[in-house]
Amino acid sequence: MSNYVLGIDFGSDSVRCLVVDAADGREVSTAVHYYPRWQRGEYSSAAENRYRHHPLDYIESLEGAICEALCLAGEEVAASVKGIALDATASTVAIVDRKGTPLALREEYAENPDAMFVLWKDHTAIDEADRIKALAKEWHTNYTKYCGDTYSCEWAWAKMLHCVKSSPELLSDAHSWVELCDWVVAMLAGNTTPETIARSRCVAGHKALWHKEWGGLPEKAFIDEVDPLLGEFLPHLYTATHTVDHCAGRLSKEWASRLGLSEGIAIGAGGVDCHVGAVGAGVREGVLVKVIGTSTCDVTVARAETLGNKIVRGICGQADDSVLPGYVGIEAGQSAFGDIYAWFRRIMEWPMRYIAEADESLFGKILPMLTAEAEKLQLSENDIVAVDWFNGRRSPDESARATGAIVGLTLGTSAPQLFKALVEASAFGSRAITERLIEEGVAIEEIYAVGGISKKSPYVMQTLCDVLGMPIKVVRSEQVCALGAAMFASVAAGIHATVEEAQRAMASGFSDEYHPNLERKSVYDKLYARYLKIGKAY
Amino acid sequence: MSNYVLGIDFGSDSVRCLVVDAADGREVSTAVHYYPRWQRGEYSSAAENRYRHHPLDYIESLEGAICEALCLAGEEVAASVKGIALDATASTVAIVDRKGTPLALREEYAENPDAMFVLWKDHTAIDEADRIKALAKEWHTNYTKYCGDTYSCEWAWAKMLHCVKSSPELLSDAHSWVELCDWVVAMLAGNTTPETIARSRCVAGHKALWHKEWGGLPEKAFIDEVDPLLGEFLPHLYTATHTVDHCAGRLSKEWASRLGLSEGIAIGAGGVDCHVGAVGAGVREGVLVKVIGTSTCDVTVARAETLGNKIVRGICGQADDSVLPGYVGIEAGQSAFGDIYAWFRRIMEWPMRYIAEADESLFGKILPMLTAEAEKLQLSENDIVAVDWFNGRRSPDESARATGAIVGLTLGTSAPQLFKALVEASAFGSRAITERLIEEGVAIEEIYAVGGISKKSPYVMQTLCDVLGMPIKVVRSEQVCALGAAMFASVAAGIHATVEEAQRAMASGFSDEYHPNLERKSVYDKLYARYLKIGKAY
Repeated sequence: MSNYVLGIDFGSDSVRCLVVDAADGREVSTAVHYYPRWQRGEYSSAAENRYRHHPLDYIESLEGAICEALCLAGEEVAASVKGIALDATASTVAIVDRKGTPLALREEYAENPDAMFVLWKDHTAIDEADRIKALAKEWHTNYTKYCGDTYSCEWAWAKMLHCVKSSPELLSDAHSWVELCDWVVAMLAGNTTPETIARSRCVAGHKALWHKEWGGLPEKAFIDEVDPLLGEFLPHLYTATHTVDHCAGRLSKEWASRLGLSEGIAIGAGGVDCHVGAVGAGVREGVLVKVIGTSTCDVTVARAETLGNKIVRGICGQADDSVLPGYVGIEAGQSAFGDIYAWFRRIMEWPMRYIAEADESLFGKILPMLTAEAEKLQLSENDIVAVDWFNGRRSPDESARATGAIVGLTLGTSAPQLFKALVEASAFGSRAITERLIEEGVAIEEIYAVGGISKKSPYVMQTLCDVLGMPIKVVRSEQVCALGAAMFASVAAGIHATVEEAQRAMASGFSDEYHPNLERKSVYDKLYARYLKIGKAY
Repeated sequence: MSNYVLGIDFGSDSVRCLVVDAADGREVSTAVHYYPRWQRGEYSSAAENRYRHHPLDYIESLEGAICEALCLAGEEVAASVKGIALDATASTVAIVDRKGTPLALREEYAENPDAMFVLWKDHTAIDEADRIKALAKEWHTNYTKYCGDTYSCEWAWAKMLHCVKSSPELLSDAHSWVELCDWVVAMLAGNTTPETIARSRCVAGHKALWHKEWGGLPEKAFIDEVDPLLGEFLPHLYTATHTVDHCAGRLSKEWASRLGLSEGIAIGAGGVDCHVGAVGAGVREGVLVKVIGTSTCDVTVARAETLGNKIVRGICGQADDSVLPGYVGIEAGQSAFGDIYAWFRRIMEWPMRYIAEADESLFGKILPMLTAEAEKLQLSENDIVAVDWFNGRRSPDESARATGAIVGLTLGTSAPQLFKALVEASAFGSRAITERLIEEGVAIEEIYAVGGISKKSPYVMQTLCDVLGMPIKVVRSEQVCALGAAMFASVAAGIHATVEEAQRAMASGFSDEYHPNLERKSVYDKLYARYLKIGKAY
């Protein structure tokens, strides 16, 4: 008898549903639904760095994606689905009322962006984050010690404070707040009462200052000192958190009927997208999973004993049991990777757009052509060197104010040479993370790559491989986040006993493998030394 | 009775003849003739940085330009020409035989590039220059002390050594060598015997290590130690040099007839183009003349007493009486200025050329459009900062290995912002020169600008003015080099008693005047501090 599971991945623009055979990880069908209000540009403002999702976008797209994927899989498969689990971007948080309903689902707040989910990349809460960061530095307990001694405006506490401060009319109904991945699980299980929602260790540990060392969330005195408005939420939040192997609930009758699934199937605890993706990609001790897209997310795990119970310096951050139960989950990342190439493409578009009045359809040729020309260039230790902090620096040593640079320019420098230097810069940023992890005692023996760039650009991948001097395997699955969620679903449903067992059974394998060219590595060692020197200097 | 004079300017691509009324500097007529073999690309190779001019190019173009300008001026004017003088690029040198004939004018060497004039920008003599520089450092007399403690591959000794080493077949006829400006004067006067040619102080002092402190050119032991081949030239070179107010000869019968001028009119001593241009622009103590084109040449004069007989640190270089008799002539410069904008234009051309396959006629729109957009940008102390050493650094503190940089890049950085930063970088490079001169006791109260950019780009000029915090006057004449030569001709002919008197009578005045915006200046002070910091750091 077959066992199927659903992995659901809430991304920035859409939700994906993947139907997987739990026996061997075979991907039976998949469907993607885009958030309709978000697609129309509602409630957000790029100029203000304000990005909001209406909760109805999630509900409608979730229902659509699951129904479509099940329809594609066929009735027989649908009848054999034993579990469901999901991941989401984080912090993607919303204020909820006493019943756990996001305020924008109430008529009176339906159009107020502060009553909606605040998307991970929303940067409206910079002041609030600064307040938390500053207070943590002087408090007797350093609540930010596990997240790189910083507090980001992308994280829950800052965002929630910003919403109630900017829309005080919400206060009369603002009771608690929820992360997207936790709220969807509770909704599917039919009970969103804030005090009973199963809260994900992943999100709590990396974004909400939760740690068992201080017994859960920060103490009330601290939260009140940040702002008494935040203190009001605290009694309705949580102390316990759940790891991803936990069965967080059972599918409610209502949702079973809406989705065409069996009532009572297991729902796994939710997780942060890149952590869940790392699991789907096959993360284990010694393997660093790099999600390589516009930015990177670098995830690995280590046993607490191996780390000597130390805090890894300058990353954001680490949390016990957050990625894989039984390990310390470790997350780092580059705040721009493919975005740097997209930046250069925009620079290259400028004359085509404004001088040649070229058709936009030509713009897609820019990066392939730069790549083709960059590949032909000789590599030398005297080449121009760039620094990759075009969107600030996430890891190592977070600095929102860090910027990019290009050094060594001559009158002979060509556009492909600039592009080559930018590709190398993104690889150097990656090396800085890897070296920091290794320095701090985290074993890194292999790199598994996922994400758009890992599939699309052999040039970038080979450069990365040569710069790191380490083999890189490209994970075959195109949807490792949903696949990781499906693994959790299989554990919640009791099909596999542990996440590691699910990984062994359901892993997708690899589509490509890169091996470092050691001659190029030795040139890159010198260019990397210049990268480090330049980065320190300005 | 009217007195007319001819100013002749030998440039990199062409020679210009300007007919001027010596009474008031009125420019009566002008003609430009391009060097025909050079136009056809003969004898040179950009890939090897080898740039050679066949002496016939000079002779034919000189004759053509003078005849055309006189024809335009009319017979009456031609009959009233009292003097002629000229400037040329330098070091632009050629090996000559016993009669002073450049070897390429002899049939057996007519096609050998090493027997031709080696143009100022030829860089084939890098090794020879390094040899001279290294030897000067350990010699008991520091022969490079007046030219920034360096010896450039663009200067005479290095080039002449390179030519005889690379074409030893020349040795049997290689007797002496000449700078272009000196050789043309001698040719017009009908006697090119190397030992009797009037040698220009300008060229000798700035390019050939001539200084009265050591009695002329470097001692034979030093030259022999550089290479005994060079020592062979020494007895046929010179000890005396002549300042630009000197009458170096009288027009020969043959040339008077070829040119349609009166036999015996005065011929002034030649000079280096940018020095002569500075005179034509009105240089005096307190005025820095900036020749702003692809690169800059910054020229001023100071009384030796004002300088306390000191050597100005880190410029290339200074020579007594070189620009204006009675003063120390001081030359500095940026090795790329407009060339940096041309570089960025080439980068911007790349996608138009290879992706949009745009018509080359559109490329001319790139810089005007970038300028229009850059002018709209706000100025802030957080702006991106660039460093201008795209072609190495000439002054202050020569370094051929220095390179350009752009720092402070973000994902939001646009093409016009990059262009703005490059314009500011070129202005910062200019400020570094001005500040060094002032630190070293050279008074700089006003800037006079000449050259293409000073006329073509009000945006660049206003930026330069704001960065320097000093008024800039743009000289009206479009051909200050030829005008300066005409001033020397008027002195050689006895029409004016001194060069300064000729300047007062013949100056062209100004076409534009820029005044610094002090608010912008204070922002630029901060950006300039970052420029200095970044420049030190890589």
